[in-house]
Amino acid sequence: MLEINGVAASNGIALANAYCLVEPELSFEKYEITNIEAELDRLKSAISRTKLELEEIRDSAMLKFGEERAAIFSAHLLILEDPEIISALEAKINEKVNAEFALDEIASMYAQLFESMENEYMKERAADIRDVSKRLLAHLLQIELPDYSRISSEVIIVAEDLTPSITAQLDKQYVKGFVTDIGGKTSHSAILARAMEIPAIVGTKTATKTISHGSPMIIDGLNGKVVVHPTEEIHESYRLLERKQREENELLKKYIELPSMSADGHSVEIAGNIGKPEDVDAVLKNGGEGIGLFRTEFLYMDRDELPSEEEQFNAYKTVLTKMAGRQTVVRTLDIGGDKELPYLKLPAEMNPFLGYRAIRLCLEQTEIFRTQLRALLRASVYGNLKIMFPMIATLDEFRAAKALLLEEKHKLADEEIAVSEQIEIGMMVEIPSAAVIADLFAQEADFLSIGTNDLIQYTLAADRMNERVSYLYQPYHPAVLRLIKMVIDAAHNNGKWVGMCGEMAGDEIAVPILLGLGLDEFSMSSSSILKTRGLLSKLSKEKLAEQVKQILLLKTSSEVEQYVKEVLN
Amino acid sequence: MLEINGVAASNGIALANAYCLVEPELSFEKYEITNIEAELDRLKSAISRTKLELEEIRDSAMLKFGEERAAIFSAHLLILEDPEIISALEAKINEKVNAEFALDEIASMYAQLFESMENEYMKERAADIRDVSKRLLAHLLQIELPDYSRISSEVIIVAEDLTPSITAQLDKQYVKGFVTDIGGKTSHSAILARAMEIPAIVGTKTATKTISHGSPMIIDGLNGKVVVHPTEEIHESYRLLERKQREENELLKKYIELPSMSADGHSVEIAGNIGKPEDVDAVLKNGGEGIGLFRTEFLYMDRDELPSEEEQFNAYKTVLTKMAGRQTVVRTLDIGGDKELPYLKLPAEMNPFLGYRAIRLCLEQTEIFRTQLRALLRASVYGNLKIMFPMIATLDEFRAAKALLLEEKHKLADEEIAVSEQIEIGMMVEIPSAAVIADLFAQEADFLSIGTNDLIQYTLAADRMNERVSYLYQPYHPAVLRLIKMVIDAAHNNGKWVGMCGEMAGDEIAVPILLGLGLDEFSMSSSSILKTRGLLSKLSKEKLAEQVKQILLLKTSSEVEQYVKEVLN
Repeated sequence: MLEINGVAASNGIALANAYCLVEPELSFEKYEITNIEAELDRLKSAISRTKLELEEIRDSAMLKFGEERAAIFSAHLLILEDPEIISALEAKINEKVNAEFALDEIASMYAQLFESMENEYMKERAADIRDVSKRLLAHLLQIELPDYSRISSEVIIVAEDLTPSITAQLDKQYVKGFVTDIGGKTSHSAILARAMEIPAIVGTKTATKTISHGSPMIIDGLNGKVVVHPTEEIHESYRLLERKQREENELLKKYIELPSMSADGHSVEIAGNIGKPEDVDAVLKNGGEGIGLFRTEFLYMDRDELPSEEEQFNAYKTVLTKMAGRQTVVRTLDIGGDKELPYLKLPAEMNPFLGYRAIRLCLEQTEIFRTQLRALLRASVYGNLKIMFPMIATLDEFRAAKALLLEEKHKLADEEIAVSEQIEIGMMVEIPSAAVIADLFAQEADFLSIGTNDLIQYTLAADRMNERVSYLYQPYHPAVLRLIKMVIDAAHNNGKWVGMCGEMAGDEIAVPILLGLGLDEFSMSSSSILKTRGLLSKLSKEKLAEQVKQILLLKTSSEVEQYVKEVLN
Repeated sequence: MLEINGVAASNGIALANAYCLVEPELSFEKYEITNIEAELDRLKSAISRTKLELEEIRDSAMLKFGEERAAIFSAHLLILEDPEIISALEAKINEKVNAEFALDEIASMYAQLFESMENEYMKERAADIRDVSKRLLAHLLQIELPDYSRISSEVIIVAEDLTPSITAQLDKQYVKGFVTDIGGKTSHSAILARAMEIPAIVGTKTATKTISHGSPMIIDGLNGKVVVHPTEEIHESYRLLERKQREENELLKKYIELPSMSADGHSVEIAGNIGKPEDVDAVLKNGGEGIGLFRTEFLYMDRDELPSEEEQFNAYKTVLTKMAGRQTVVRTLDIGGDKELPYLKLPAEMNPFLGYRAIRLCLEQTEIFRTQLRALLRASVYGNLKIMFPMIATLDEFRAAKALLLEEKHKLADEEIAVSEQIEIGMMVEIPSAAVIADLFAQEADFLSIGTNDLIQYTLAADRMNERVSYLYQPYHPAVLRLIKMVIDAAHNNGKWVGMCGEMAGDEIAVPILLGLGLDEFSMSSSSILKTRGLLSKLSKEKLAEQVKQILLLKTSSEVEQYVKEVLN
C-alpha cells in the first residue's frame, strides 16, 4: 500500500483502477539493417495495427462525441493509405536503415513541407502527419500510447497535468476521479473537476512516477489523499465513507427548494459558476438562484477560430432562457494567463499571469470584444443579463470597456435590434489596485464581483498554480480579508450589490466571515451550493458581524482559521 | 534619418555608431561534395582564422579583465588543436559531406559525450565545444559573430535584450549607451545602465531589426528617443544639448556637500542603491547620505557556485568600511524572478515573478541564507548595518527570517565573534499583502522600505518587463499612492522610519508626493541623488502635506501627474 498526499481539489471519494495518462518516451536509434524484406514486413504490420487502432478510435469518438470529432481520425487513416508516403517509406528502408529512422525522416520531411505552405488549412495538416507518425512509431517500438478517448471501464486518471481541453473530453461515465502531479486548488483542471462533480487530487508532485497503470487505488478528495494498492481493510473503510457521503448528499437535497437565508433571517443569493451552456442544468438541479459567473472563454477554446457572433448569441440565449429570469452574470472574455487560444497566436510571455490577458487584450483587439458584446446585447432580451469585465486594474480600463459596450448598444438600436434596458454593467475585482480603489469603481459600476482566485494570488504575489509557493495561497490572510471588506463597504456605501465568484465563496471557513462582512451574492461550483446553503442556515449574520471585527484584528491566516473553527463549534 | 521611440531607461545623451549585438543565423544545408581536398582546405583555413580570432580575444580579455576570464579562450584554442577532433572532422569530410555538416555532426557528438559524463567539470566542457564550433561554423559560412568583449571604439550597443552579465561586462570607456528591443524602466539592464551612468533606451520593439551595424546614431535618454543617421542639423542640436546637460550636472555639484532639506527646513535622507562594493564610490561621489539598498544578489551572479561566507564577509566589510558609519541597508538574497543562478538548478516556472524567489527560497534553503546572515553579522562591527528581507508577504515569513538571524547571532556570540548590537532588522514592502497589513509589520520590524518596482507590478498585476502591458506600470495610480500612504502612516504610528528604494524615489513627479506623505528616506541610483536633492530644496513639505490630501482624491494616474505638474509650476 502506498499513500500520496496532494491538494484536495474536488471533494468526494473514488475507488477504481489507475489509468496513467503519461506520454511514454518514443526514442530509437538509427541502425543499419541486413534484411530489407523483413524490415518492410515489420513496417507493413505496424501500419495495419495502427489503422486498426485508428478505426476503433474513430468509431468510439463518433459514438461519444459525434461526427465532427471523429473526422480527424478519418483524416489520419487517409494519411496511412497515401501511396506516395508509403512508397517514400519503402524507398528509405531500401537504403538499409531501420523503419523507425525511415519513418522519422519521411514524416519530418512531409510535415515541414506542409508547414512551409501559405494556406492555413495545409499548414495544419503538418500536425496530423506528426500525430499519425507518432502513433505508427509507437507501434513499431511496440509501446502503448495512452488514449483517454478509448477508456471504457471505470478508472482514475493519473497524469502530470490535465489541460482544460482533455478534462472537458473525459467521459464521466468511466472517469471516476483524477490525480495530477502539478496544479493547485484553483488550477483550471481543478475547477473543471468540481464542475464535473468528480473527486480530484492535484499537485501530488510524484503521482505519475509512483503509480503504475492499472493499479487499484482510492482518492479521498476531502483530505487530498491518494491510496494505491489499498489493504482490504482500508478499501472497506473507504467504501463505507463513500456510502456515507452519498447519504449526506441525499440529506442536503432538502435545501434545493429552500431560500438562502441565515439563521437570523438575513437573505443572500447563492449562485453557480458555469463554463458552458450545459452547465446550467447542474446549477438548477442544485437549486442555484442565479449564475454569478459565466466563464465565456470556454466558448473560444478547443477550436480553430474565433466563435462567430451568431454562435455566441445562441450560447448566451440558451443560458438566459434556461435561467428563466434568474440573475445571470456573464464575464466577458478572459483569455491569456494559463488559458491560451492557439489561433490568436499571442506571443509567449515570461509571466503570463501578469501579462496581456482578459480586458487588456479585449481593449486592444476590439473586434473580438465587439463581437462578444453584440452577441450579449442581442441575447439580453431572453433573460436577466448582467455583464462584467475581467482583470480591471484602472478606472480608464473600466470606462473604455463600458464605452465600447454602449457604442455597440447604440449601433444595435440604429439597426432596430431589440436590447434589454435593464442590463447591469459591473466588473471583477481581482487585481489589488481595483480592491484598493473599489470606492472609485463603485461610483461607476452597477455591481462588483470579487474574484478571489486571482485577487489572492496577486495580493500575495504567489502563482496559484505553482506548488513551490502554494503555502502562500492564503484566502484568510488578513490583507485579503481587509481588501474584501474594502470592496464590500465601497459597494454598499454607493448603494451597489457585491458578489464573490472565486472558490472562497463556497469555502466553509470563509463563508461565515463573508456573511459577517455583508457579502450579497455567493457564487460557486454547483456541487458546493447545497452544502453552503445548509451552512448559512445555521449562521447568525448579526453575531458574525460582531465577530468579524475581532477576526480583522488577527495577524495571520492560521490565526483566522483557528478562530473561525472555534467560533463555529 | 530614422526615429525610434522606446522607454527612457537611463538619462543622458549619447552620440556614437551602432554596435549590433545580434546573433546572426548560422544555418546551412547538407550537400555532397565532389572535391574532398578543396573541402579539407576550406576547413583548415577556417580553423586558422578562428584561432587567430580567439588569440586576439584572449589577449584583449587578459588586458581588460585579467587572467581568469582570458583562460576560457585558451581552453577554446586547445579544442581547435585537439588531433582527435581534427581527424574526426577530416574523416567525416572524406565521406563526401560539406565541412559545415561534418562540423555539426562531430561537435554534437563530442558535446553529447561530455554532457553524459558524471563529472561536473567535464560536463561543462560541452558548452566550450558548442561555443568553439559555433565560432568555427561562422568562419566556414563567412558570417561575422558579434563580440562585445572586443569593442574598442565608442559605440552604442543595439541588442534584443542585455542580460545582467553582459551589461556588467561592458566597458564604459567605449560603450556610450544602449538600445534594446525589450525591457522596461525597471528591468535589470535598465537599473545597471543607471548604475553605470550611461544613457539607455529599452523596449523599442524594433531596434535590432531597423538599425544596422555601424550606423551613426543618437540616443536621447530623457525622452526615450533614438535617432539613426541624424541630419547634420539634428546632430548639432543634440551635441549642444549634451553639452548643456554636462553643464547642468556641473551646477548640481553644489548639492554634494549640502544636506537633504526641503525649502521649509524638513530634513530627509537621500541614499544610493548599489549592487557591488565598487558602486559605493559613485554614491559617495554624488553625496549620498547612506545606502538604502545593497542588492546582494550580484555577489551570487556570474559564477559557478555560491559565494563563501568569507567572500561575502569581505564584500560587506568593504561596503561598511567605505561608508564610514553612514546608514547602510543590506537586502538579503533576492534571487529568482528574472534573476537566475544557474548553479542552483531551480526548476523553470510558469510565472517566475510570482514564484519561488527571494525570502521564499531562503526560508527553505536555509543553509544559503544562514551563510549570508553570518557574513553580515560578522561584518556588522565595521559600520552602521541594517538588514532587510525581500518579498515578505506574511508575518510568519518575517518572523521566521528574523528568528534565523537571531539564531546565527547567538551562535556567533557562543563562538566569541564580535557582532554589533545596533543592527536594525527591517523588511521590504513590495508585495500588496505587506502594504495592506503594514501596521502589523511595523510592530515587529525596526524599519520598512518600500520597493516600488515590485509593489507596482503586483498591485496592478502587470509584468514590468512586458511591453504589452507596460501602460499598466503606473507609479501614480491612486491605489499605489494609497498603499504607500498606508505604509508610511503605519511606520510612523509605531515610531519606525520608512524608506523607499524603488525607482519611484528619484522620480520628479513622485518626490513631491512622497515628501508630502512624510517619507523619511529616499534611496535611488547614484546618478539621481543630486537632482533629487536639488528638487527637494525647492519644495515645501508643509504645503505638500496639504496638497497630497487633494492628490489622494484623484481617480487616475494621469490626473495625478497633471496635478503635480501644475502645482509645481
